[in-house]
Amino acid sequence: MNLLIKNVALLSMKEEQPLMENTNIYIEGDTITYIGEINPDIKVDRVIDGTKKIATPGLINAHTHLGMSLLRNYADDVPLFDWLSKHIWPVESKLSAEDVYWGSLLSMIEMIYSGTTTFCDMYFFMDEVAKATEEVGIRGVLTRGIIEESDAEINKEKLRDTRKLYNTWHNKADGRIKVMVGPHAPYTCSSSYLKEVVELAKELNTGIHIHVSETKKEVEESFQKHGKSPVKHLKDIGVFDVPTVAAHCVHVSDEDTEILKEMKVSPVYNPTSNAKLASGFAPVDQMLKKGINVALGTDGPASNNNLNMFEEIHFAATINKALNYDALAVPALEALKMATINGAKALLWDKEIGSIEVGKKADIVIIDIDKPHFYPHHNLISALAYTAQASDVDTVIINGKIIMENREIKTVDVEKVMYNVEKRAKNLIQR
Amino acid sequence: MNLLIKNVALLSMKEEQPLMENTNIYIEGDTITYIGEINPDIKVDRVIDGTKKIATPGLINAHTHLGMSLLRNYADDVPLFDWLSKHIWPVESKLSAEDVYWGSLLSMIEMIYSGTTTFCDMYFFMDEVAKATEEVGIRGVLTRGIIEESDAEINKEKLRDTRKLYNTWHNKADGRIKVMVGPHAPYTCSSSYLKEVVELAKELNTGIHIHVSETKKEVEESFQKHGKSPVKHLKDIGVFDVPTVAAHCVHVSDEDTEILKEMKVSPVYNPTSNAKLASGFAPVDQMLKKGINVALGTDGPASNNNLNMFEEIHFAATINKALNYDALAVPALEALKMATINGAKALLWDKEIGSIEVGKKADIVIIDIDKPHFYPHHNLISALAYTAQASDVDTVIINGKIIMENREIKTVDVEKVMYNVEKRAKNLIQR
Ligand SMILES: [Zn+2]
Ligand SMILES: [Zn+2]
Repeated sequence: MNLLIKNVALLSMKEEQPLMENTNIYIEGDTITYIGEINPDIKVDRVIDGTKKIATPGLINAHTHLGMSLLRNYADDVPLFDWLSKHIWPVESKLSAEDVYWGSLLSMIEMIYSGTTTFCDMYFFMDEVAKATEEVGIRGVLTRGIIEESDAEINKEKLRDTRKLYNTWHNKADGRIKVMVGPHAPYTCSSSYLKEVVELAKELNTGIHIHVSETKKEVEESFQKHGKSPVKHLKDIGVFDVPTVAAHCVHVSDEDTEILKEMKVSPVYNPTSNAKLASGFAPVDQMLKKGINVALGTDGPASNNNLNMFEEIHFAATINKALNYDALAVPALEALKMATINGAKALLWDKEIGSIEVGKKADIVIIDIDKPHFYPHHNLISALAYTAQASDVDTVIINGKIIMENREIKTVDVEKVMYNVEKRAKNLIQR
Repeated sequence: MNLLIKNVALLSMKEEQPLMENTNIYIEGDTITYIGEINPDIKVDRVIDGTKKIATPGLINAHTHLGMSLLRNYADDVPLFDWLSKHIWPVESKLSAEDVYWGSLLSMIEMIYSGTTTFCDMYFFMDEVAKATEEVGIRGVLTRGIIEESDAEINKEKLRDTRKLYNTWHNKADGRIKVMVGPHAPYTCSSSYLKEVVELAKELNTGIHIHVSETKKEVEESFQKHGKSPVKHLKDIGVFDVPTVAAHCVHVSDEDTEILKEMKVSPVYNPTSNAKLASGFAPVDQMLKKGINVALGTDGPASNNNLNMFEEIHFAATINKALNYDALAVPALEALKMATINGAKALLWDKEIGSIEVGKKADIVIIDIDKPHFYPHHNLISALAYTAQASDVDTVIINGKIIMENREIKTVDVEKVMYNVEKRAKNLIQR
């Protein structure tokens, strides 16, 4: 199928001229093949009218735990450690494969509605997440979360799981699925286990997705145990020899950020989750100024409590100004980059997605700016970074396929998913 | 007319039992007359089905500048002082009465769409804001912003303006309009002028709406000029002898907050604006714990850049946890109180609005929770504070009248307002 988006404002996120006020985007199959003036007689299968709309690259949620939607609004106003150990982990241990399937479907639906076309997930029962990804038509990096246990056999099993996941799903679903290796965190995996994880990632020639320096406590304990920060520890073990997506990086020193830069690690900023769990504020402006590729994420829906990337963009573009007493910190375009091209780079996917350019996959979000809160139309980049709402997303195209049009999702039965999630979640907390 | 909201979850914001899972709300004329089980044979003019919906008090935006919507996204990523002096004030000086009328209409429309039923505005051409308020059917406190100039006659004129505004509009529009006195800030009005302002407020028996301690610079200059903080300065002049709505209070010391408490001043927290303009973070958790009545606002749409109170609620409930490394700081219900009953108290309106109780005016927002991001329904208070989006607001009732139903505003022509604002804004910046 070929598809034309006509008369649309375009925030391409290309380095030069990121914004065009009025253009046309031509898509053949899964690929953007032309942007610019068009011959009015051109033959296309489908035309989307872009009048009073703006096309942006699909948003990239670079760190989340999709299956956790079943625990959304289940335990709030609790600090991270208690939240995990007293509330989340006990219930998570009861989750079935089917629970994760339905919870992930719900999260993917929410992401589509809010303009996210690519995610990086860390969870378990990842075959279920893969199935859901295939069905919904979304794009994602799947990582089986690996927490070391006392039983060595179980630990080996988790690595085998990852290898199997990779063999079954990497580059599958028309290339919409990638598999990386997902050690949970330096404080939940020993050095020797992490080294095995690194070997596996090298063997599979893929990246690593890990939580790093999320809380003060984690950093303090790393100094006690290893005599160094989590970042330095991970570098010394060799984790960063593999391309790494490092969720959080809240409590990182100057020395740490030098390491992140040197080793080309991509931190993922999760401002809402870091705030809500009282973890703190990552030094995002400093990292961006160093040239570090900071991506953006929501973290799981249980610690946020939604998957709305526009809220993360607003947070990123505003909080950092106050933190630094600098109204120029994280300007509008920089925040939008974090949610698009930087995410693509972090996920080793920037040759194909993250911007709207000829030759890239057509992952495009069309936003309706004909709404009161967008008026007047002084500056569309500011409008997207500071004003836009998730609900302004009108149409979502992934891999050249229209997944949502006029806010109607075409690939999955939304009512059925909500019904099943409600039933399963209520059952889960009573098990 | 009488009106019944049937089978609805109710977040009443009453001290005891703020949440009821399923009830009915009966409204006669402008007043809530009954909440609870109903006789199925009851005769009513209109029934609203509340299934899978939650009713909350209308949100109260306790500090804004509605006419500034014409400058939304006009100058961003600029610090407060430059933003005001180089960008905003030069353009504002060219605003006509009609500009303010259309800009205010646009802002009121945006507020209705996002569940705000009451605002506290500070601007000029306030007769136009009053007209717009009357037409839209919203509720508001109007204050004519008073900045002292070198010409004494002009300064007197501004006080006369306020008196006239009060005489024309206070308690008008079926009681939906209140008028207060609006000195802009301690750094834009001299002590002697502020004393005249206080006398006027006493004479009119109304409150004061003023900006206080928004930036570090303001506080430093106050110490240089007066040898004390803006808060202490205002107390000593007698401003706080009148009930005061104090926008911002970002840079307040312990001594300052003691004064705010003692003098029953209501600070208005504007987290997005304070962050975006790099002003800083107000010590909201500390103020709430002292028992200070902190309300919530968006500030003007040019420094935010929207009027979405749900984003302010999310900010309030999350940022303060990270600032204090305390996951219990500003819990969900506290953030919702700031946006409702605390706002009502600040605006001297809590006998009539701010909660859903028998005898109060029917200012009610009905939120559709049958959407993916609300599933599963574990905890509705958390859901409203952390998950809800402005676009989830389905129906808005103000003073017993249905102003919006199924997201359709009934009192004003939205298309026409957007058209006029666009035209006027483009013209304005070229004048
Ligand atoms: Zn995480
Ligand atoms: Zn203000």
